Amino acid sequence: MPRRVDHDQRRHEITDAVCRITVKGGLTAATFREVAAEAGVSVRLVQYYFGSKDQLLLVTLQHVAERATARLHRRLGAAGPTPRERLRAVLTSFIPDDDESREHTLMLVALHTARLVDPTLARKETDAVPRALQNTVAKLLREARLRPGVEPKREAALLVAALPSLAQTVLDGMQTVSQATAVVDYALDRALR
Amino acid sequence: MPRRVDHDQRRHEITDAVCRITVKGGLTAATFREVAAEAGVSVRLVQYYFGSKDQLLLVTLQHVAERATARLHRRLGAAGPTPRERLRAVLTSFIPDDDESREHTLMLVALHTARLVDPTLARKETDAVPRALQNTVAKLLREARLRPGVEPKREAALLVAALPSLAQTVLDGMQTVSQATAVVDYALDRALR
Repeated sequence: MPRRVDHDQRRHEITDAVCRITVKGGLTAATFREVAAEAGVSVRLVQYYFGSKDQLLLVTLQHVAERATARLHRRLGAAGPTPRERLRAVLTSFIPDDDESREHTLMLVALHTARLVDPTLARKETDAVPRALQNTVAKLLREARLRPGVEPKREAALLVAALPSLAQTVLDGMQTVSQATAVVDYALDRALR
Repeated sequence: MPRRVDHDQRRHEITDAVCRITVKGGLTAATFREVAAEAGVSVRLVQYYFGSKDQLLLVTLQHVAERATARLHRRLGAAGPTPRERLRAVLTSFIPDDDESREHTLMLVALHTARLVDPTLARKETDAVPRALQNTVAKLLREARLRPGVEPKREAALLVAALPSLAQTVLDGMQTVSQATAVVDYALDRALR
């Protein structure tokens, strides 16, 4: 049988290594050398696949965003059928309550921070997840019975704006999962009949 | 006249250098060597004042938090007397609309991200500003005429949670100052009579 390298799997193994290193020491620690060692491949292979650190981080962001989106869809699939249950599933899916979601949150925070000074990361594609999330929340709000004064688009902007901070304060221990979830429930009580 | 070094001023000059470097290249770029060069002092002096990079970042966070708080108080001082005007002044003071506030926002985002993997920064003191802000907003809400269902403490938690993301999306160009301000105004319309 001919040897067949699954390039896509290799890329995922390498971006997974970026995540494991970042969780321990931040993005600074994720040098090509460290990433190659963690992934068990050569530095040349990392360079071959990604070319630059910026490109490596951009693909890592895409892989993490795919996994966070898959988690959201699993949560939605397990939620009840009412708009309120579906909204709650979407909004709470970003509050980290297991190792997987803690890693997603930390990576998304780290990469969106790196965006602020890194032109490669500050690209349209990297806005895709927050924009899609805001549209999903606005759509679910339109299907719900809203209290007077609630505008779906603006309400979605407010709710989605609160999520990164709720996720981050759980991650850094400023509040618990149930405190952050209580803020989401309060916001839904205020918006829905 | 004897030579007198104003230690506090020196420390501020050095943390200002950290800010200027971070705005261009992120916290990673703020090595002792770069910070010393930017501040026009020796690496030994930076080490003498701060000992470690973590300590340097902790004091930088404190200095930035002091300046962001001073800006908030200037905004409050210039605001009208009603609870709504005062709430609006507090909440919009974190939306970056000039070079000074863009620097504050970027530094606060970068340092709160570094907190997630850096035990020196993950200390009680570094929560002081968000906690004080939440108490101030809750207090102003208690002085206002609220719509039915608004609980000052939970509403403050929701509003304050939305601020970092509103500030960051303005900084990275995802939305404009007026779009972020419109989200604050919408939230106030929903909470206050």
